[in-house]
Amino acid sequence: MRIVLALGGNALLRPNDDGTVESELKRAKQSLQPIETLLSGREKILITHGNGPQVGNALLRVEASIPKTPPRPLDHLVSDTQGGLGYLLERTVRNLILKNNGSREVLAMLAQVEIDSDKDSFRNAIKPIGPYYSIENKAELERKGWFVKKTDRGLRRLVPSPKPKRVVELEIIRSLFENRVLVITAGGGGTPVVTTERGYEGVEGVIDKDSVASLLACELNATHLIIATDVDNVWVGKEKTPLEKITKDEIKLYYEKGEFPEGSMGPKVEAGIQFLERGGEMAIITSTEKISLALQGEAGTIITN
Amino acid sequence: MRIVLALGGNALLRPNDDGTVESELKRAKQSLQPIETLLSGREKILITHGNGPQVGNALLRVEASIPKTPPRPLDHLVSDTQGGLGYLLERTVRNLILKNNGSREVLAMLAQVEIDSDKDSFRNAIKPIGPYYSIENKAELERKGWFVKKTDRGLRRLVPSPKPKRVVELEIIRSLFENRVLVITAGGGGTPVVTTERGYEGVEGVIDKDSVASLLACELNATHLIIATDVDNVWVGKEKTPLEKITKDEIKLYYEKGEFPEGSMGPKVEAGIQFLERGGEMAIITSTEKISLALQGEAGTIITN
Repeated sequence: MRIVLALGGNALLRPNDDGTVESELKRAKQSLQPIETLLSGREKILITHGNGPQVGNALLRVEASIPKTPPRPLDHLVSDTQGGLGYLLERTVRNLILKNNGSREVLAMLAQVEIDSDKDSFRNAIKPIGPYYSIENKAELERKGWFVKKTDRGLRRLVPSPKPKRVVELEIIRSLFENRVLVITAGGGGTPVVTTERGYEGVEGVIDKDSVASLLACELNATHLIIATDVDNVWVGKEKTPLEKITKDEIKLYYEKGEFPEGSMGPKVEAGIQFLERGGEMAIITSTEKISLALQGEAGTIITN
Repeated sequence: MRIVLALGGNALLRPNDDGTVESELKRAKQSLQPIETLLSGREKILITHGNGPQVGNALLRVEASIPKTPPRPLDHLVSDTQGGLGYLLERTVRNLILKNNGSREVLAMLAQVEIDSDKDSFRNAIKPIGPYYSIENKAELERKGWFVKKTDRGLRRLVPSPKPKRVVELEIIRSLFENRVLVITAGGGGTPVVTTERGYEGVEGVIDKDSVASLLACELNATHLIIATDVDNVWVGKEKTPLEKITKDEIKLYYEKGEFPEGSMGPKVEAGIQFLERGGEMAIITSTEKISLALQGEAGTIITN
């Protein structure tokens, strides 16, 4: 098997967790222990992961210490979280492999992801990010060049969520993956960049991590794309009927009917469909606890051609 | 040539800079442009770098937003800076290589560095880090388990500066280095870890980046260790006589006489001596502007056997 595994935010943080690194480490271990045999074994695996709560905290920290420390744009903050979470996950995975007497090398590396700067997804700020601000701050926030949106809890900054076009470090990732190194990369969707006449430049946006996972899975000729989330199955309808084995065309119909909410299950299903359309064998959407069973066809939502 | 290049903090930030990422990017470009031919060429190169001001700002940000966001231990903050600075340097280096029509791959990866937990350097907190605190906060700071020291500007936290023993990801770094990938890693000395019966665990400390550079240079059988700093040469004596070509044994005598201040030139000279003692050919201490000339034997302090 050639596997790309996208870990959802809940692999590191759940609703009642306190958000400290101690609880993140505990949660990471708990999330990955059910697949320790897989991690320690012979399959080729790449892991990517979300960074929502962590980049949210990073934004709060930057805001709280201005002007004592300089502002820090979003591309740099995403890179910071690739560093911090990469360390946390690499350590957790390596310890599980050691415990299982596995011999696999583990590496966390930074990924820059080139986005399509012509697409509307880059021009339109749609993704809410960071803290809530009081309504009185509107003018001040807009002076920073931010798009802001009124919500029930106050103003929220919106950033673009551009579509990923290419992972800049792809060739190195590919060679590590082929050599069975367990690569952890493109956390939080990777750091968004565009190419200009001056070379690569960073942009303030957040790429959907499932979309990058799908892109990486296609480029690496993965057989399996596994999207780990907080539920065992994708649901449809008022009765919340869990989807088990389903074809790409069947789930596409549900998708087109609007069964899957934007910003949660929608992008995951879309990533799975895209992967199968570009040559993938199987997309699995399930909880980390059920991944091993799902790979045997006995749990989770399993999408095939 | 097989080169390990350690970039000092001033490659990214100089005394009058405002500390924004815009100025860091400008400074990185300015520091690396003089060696763009080297970066784009056929030599094997690994780059490591400091993170002093950046981890200092990270500590300030954490402090400023407690209790809105949870505390963040030093090993995680060092990893964050490996992420943020790795991105910044990788982008800068890649753009310089593209400009020179080079074909080299560039990668920024996280490094965990195992420290010697038996050594005094781990037990003794000696390295000042982070913001200055008012003297009234002494009891509160000590309740956190911190060592604090009184300075002219207020209280300062002290952390251990343990000696590096082993880079956890060494085998991957070696294989990338041999394949001529330009690896950027172990920023800020790498993230300090110890091994316990539970596997690798992080520790709160800061490893000297020149010491890690020397260790990496030895392990990679580098021929050249280049330590880039803010002066063209190492100085000795009251007349500040610049050292040019010098043998390891000659500079060792100056070192033992206490010519080089701790925390600045001392660790650089020590790293150079250590590299030569373990089989290195040439250690260079100079400014980034003079690296190319120094490699031709025409500038910098050049230490050989």
